[in-house]
Amino acid sequence: MLQSQLFTKTRRNAPKDEEALNAQLLARGGFVQKLMAGVYSFLPLGLRVLRKIETIVREEMVGIGGEELSLPVLHPKANWSTTGRWETYDTLFRFTSHYSKNDYVLGPTHEEVIAPLAQQFIFSYQDLPRYVFQIQTKFRDEKRAKSGLLRGREFLMKDLYSFHRDDADLDAYYEKVQAAYARVFARVGLGDDTVLTFASGGSFSKYSHEFQTLIPSGEDTMYLCEKCRVAVNKEIIKEQPTCPSCGGAKLEEKTGAEVGNIFKLKTKYSAPFGLQYKDEKGAMHDVLMGCYGIGISRLMGVVVERFHDEKGILWPASIAPFSVHLLELNGASATGLYSALQKRGVDVLYDETERSAGEKLTDADLLGVPLRAVVSPKTKGKIELKRRDSEKAELVSEEELLKLLNH
Amino acid sequence: MLQSQLFTKTRRNAPKDEEALNAQLLARGGFVQKLMAGVYSFLPLGLRVLRKIETIVREEMVGIGGEELSLPVLHPKANWSTTGRWETYDTLFRFTSHYSKNDYVLGPTHEEVIAPLAQQFIFSYQDLPRYVFQIQTKFRDEKRAKSGLLRGREFLMKDLYSFHRDDADLDAYYEKVQAAYARVFARVGLGDDTVLTFASGGSFSKYSHEFQTLIPSGEDTMYLCEKCRVAVNKEIIKEQPTCPSCGGAKLEEKTGAEVGNIFKLKTKYSAPFGLQYKDEKGAMHDVLMGCYGIGISRLMGVVVERFHDEKGILWPASIAPFSVHLLELNGASATGLYSALQKRGVDVLYDETERSAGEKLTDADLLGVPLRAVVSPKTKGKIELKRRDSEKAELVSEEELLKLLNH
Repeated sequence: MLQSQLFTKTRRNAPKDEEALNAQLLARGGFVQKLMAGVYSFLPLGLRVLRKIETIVREEMVGIGGEELSLPVLHPKANWSTTGRWETYDTLFRFTSHYSKNDYVLGPTHEEVIAPLAQQFIFSYQDLPRYVFQIQTKFRDEKRAKSGLLRGREFLMKDLYSFHRDDADLDAYYEKVQAAYARVFARVGLGDDTVLTFASGGSFSKYSHEFQTLIPSGEDTMYLCEKCRVAVNKEIIKEQPTCPSCGGAKLEEKTGAEVGNIFKLKTKYSAPFGLQYKDEKGAMHDVLMGCYGIGISRLMGVVVERFHDEKGILWPASIAPFSVHLLELNGASATGLYSALQKRGVDVLYDETERSAGEKLTDADLLGVPLRAVVSPKTKGKIELKRRDSEKAELVSEEELLKLLNH
Repeated sequence: MLQSQLFTKTRRNAPKDEEALNAQLLARGGFVQKLMAGVYSFLPLGLRVLRKIETIVREEMVGIGGEELSLPVLHPKANWSTTGRWETYDTLFRFTSHYSKNDYVLGPTHEEVIAPLAQQFIFSYQDLPRYVFQIQTKFRDEKRAKSGLLRGREFLMKDLYSFHRDDADLDAYYEKVQAAYARVFARVGLGDDTVLTFASGGSFSKYSHEFQTLIPSGEDTMYLCEKCRVAVNKEIIKEQPTCPSCGGAKLEEKTGAEVGNIFKLKTKYSAPFGLQYKDEKGAMHDVLMGCYGIGISRLMGVVVERFHDEKGILWPASIAPFSVHLLELNGASATGLYSALQKRGVDVLYDETERSAGEKLTDADLLGVPLRAVVSPKTKGKIELKRRDSEKAELVSEEELLKLLNH
C-alpha cells in the first residue's frame, strides 16, 4: 500500500502517559491508540499484525479438531450465580440495564456460557469428545492497567473448550493442546523464549500449566529449570524446590509474561449446569471439561517487548504488517518496482512520500518491517536491501529481489 | 466436514420463547443459540454464514478505499459528554467501574471515538480525504428485543467513517458508498428486494438514506415509488407526497427491514472535538464527516426472513455455510465422492450419520445448503442432485457433478 494513503502517521515521541515499552513503540508507529487506560484502538497497521496472529492461532486450533464459534460479550447474571463466580470473580465488570433492570456481566471468560450451551448438543458418549473455540473480545475490570497490551481492560483472546467422557480422553487432548500451543508460540517468533510453566492446579488437578515468555518486563516471577527448560511459579516452588518435570534442582529466577494457559476443569463447570452424558449402559455422568486460552492482543505486546531496539520494532516475518518496506529517496522513483511486487502478491508498504531520507529511514526502523528495500540515486538502478535485524545492506537487482522473496 | 463431528444438532421444534421466524429457523438449524433476549451465540454453522457476509462487505469497503481498523467496545463517559449524547442517546448502555469508579459506555456507534482519533492523524488538506471502517460488535440497551437477529442488544456491524475537506468531496464519496452498498446487497442475494429509502436527514442535510429490504416482518413502514423503485419513510411522506427521486406520485405502502444507512454528518462530530484541517493558505476549517453502517448479523436474519419455505432456510450460494450437502442414504457410502470434493476444495458438508433417510433429508432442507447431493442404493452409482430452491432432481455422474461445481 501507498504510505501517503495510510490513515496513521508515526510520532517522534510516545504519548506521555504510556509507561510500557510495548505501548510506547506501538503508539509511536501508529499501530495502536489508547482510548483510556487498558483500552486500545487497533489502527490499520496494528490490525494487520493482530489478524496474522489470529490466523496462526486459528490454524493450530483447527488442526487439533477445534470448531470455531462466537459467544456473546453480554452475559446474564444468572449464569454466573450458578457457578458462584458472580460474587467471587475479582475483576468482573457487572452492571444493570437501565430499561430491563437486568444484571449483566461483560464476559472475561466463557465457561458460564459454553457449559449450558454444550448441554443443548451433548447427550450421549457418542457426542464426545467435542472441541470448540472462539477468538473474541474480553473484559476485565483491572485495578491497574499500565502495561500497554500486556494487561488490558478490553483485550482479544482465543479460548478453546473441550468436552470429554473420561480422564484418559481429557489428558490425551490436554497433551495435544500443549503441543499446538508450542507451535503457535514458535510460529509467532517466540519459540525460543517461551517455556511451559507449572502453576497450582486449583481443586481438581495437581498442576495447571501456563506458557510464559521470558521478558524483563514480565509481571510474573518464575523459576526456570536449566536442565529441561520447564519453569515453575512461586507457589509451586514453595511446596517443592525441585523441577516437577525432570527433578532437577537448579532453578533460576526469571521474569515472564503469561501468553497462554491450559486447565483441566474436569467437572467444575459441567456439574453446576448439569452437563451430563449417557454411557453405553444408560448411566449418566458429568462431562469432563478443559479450557485453553491464548491472549492474542497480549501476544502482540509481548512480541514488541521481546523484539525491539532503540530505533523501533523488529517484527518476526510471520506476523509483520508487511513483508517489504519499499522506500524511494532523494528524488528516485520506485513506482515500477512497487507494481512488480504488487503483481506478484508481495505485501509491500511503499513510502512514496516527499520527505527527507532521514525521516523515511527513521520511520522504517520504527515500523519494523523485516525487509527494507531502498531505491535512490546512489543505488544506480539497483536496490539496497537490508534486513531490519541486520546492519549489513546489499545491492541487488529487481530480479534478484523477486527471487529472494520467493514469488 | 463430517456432519457427525459437528458441534451442533438440528432440532425438530424451535425454542418456545422465539417469536421471530429468523430466530426460529436459525435456532432449529443450530446456526445460533439465544443466551438472553437480543443476545445470541453464533455457532459453527452460523459463524460460517456471518464470515461470508463479512468478507463481502469488507471487499466492497476496501474497493472504495476503506482502511480497516478496530475500535474499542468500552468508551469513557467524557467522549459522550463532549457531544451531548451521554444524556440524549436513548439506548446507551452506561455503567460504572467497581474499582476506578469511572463511567463507561458500551459503544453503539463510534463517532465519539473516531473523531478524536482522526485528530491525531489529520492536520492538513493533504491528509484528506480518509476512509476507515471496522467490523465490530456493538451494543444497545433495547427496550424490546424479540425480533431475533433483526434487533439485538449485541450485534455485529460494519461502520465506515469518511473525512473530507468540502461538501463536493463528501457528496462524491457518499455516492460511491451508495453504489458499494447496492453491490453488497446484490452479492448477499438481496439485490432485488432492497431499495434506497429517503429518511429525514437531521440538522445538516435534507435527506439521509437507508437501505430497506422489503420483507413482511420488517419493522418500518415505507412508501415505494413504482416508477423508480426508491422509497420514502413515514416522516418524509408527511411533508412531501411525491417521490423525491423521480417526482412520481404512486407510492405503495410496504414494510421494510433496515439493512444499511448512510449519513452526511458534516461537522456534527468534528466540531465538538475540534477536528480541523489547515488549507493551502494556512486557514483552519472543520473536517466534514460521513458515516455509513451495515448490520452484518441483522443481514443474516433478513436473508432468512426473505429466503425460507415451510421446510427451512434457502441460503443464497454466496453466503451459504457450505456449497454442497452430501447425503448417503440407506446403507450406501459416499466416502469416495466426499474425498474427491474435498480434494477439489469444494466446501462440502457430508452427512455420514447412521440415521433414517427421512431424518437426513429433513435436516438438509432445514439447513438450506443450496445444492443437495444424495447417494443411495436407488441412485445406482450415480448421484441425485437437487437444488434447494427447486423440486426437480436429476441423476448425474461424479464427473458431471465436479464439472458443474466448476472445480
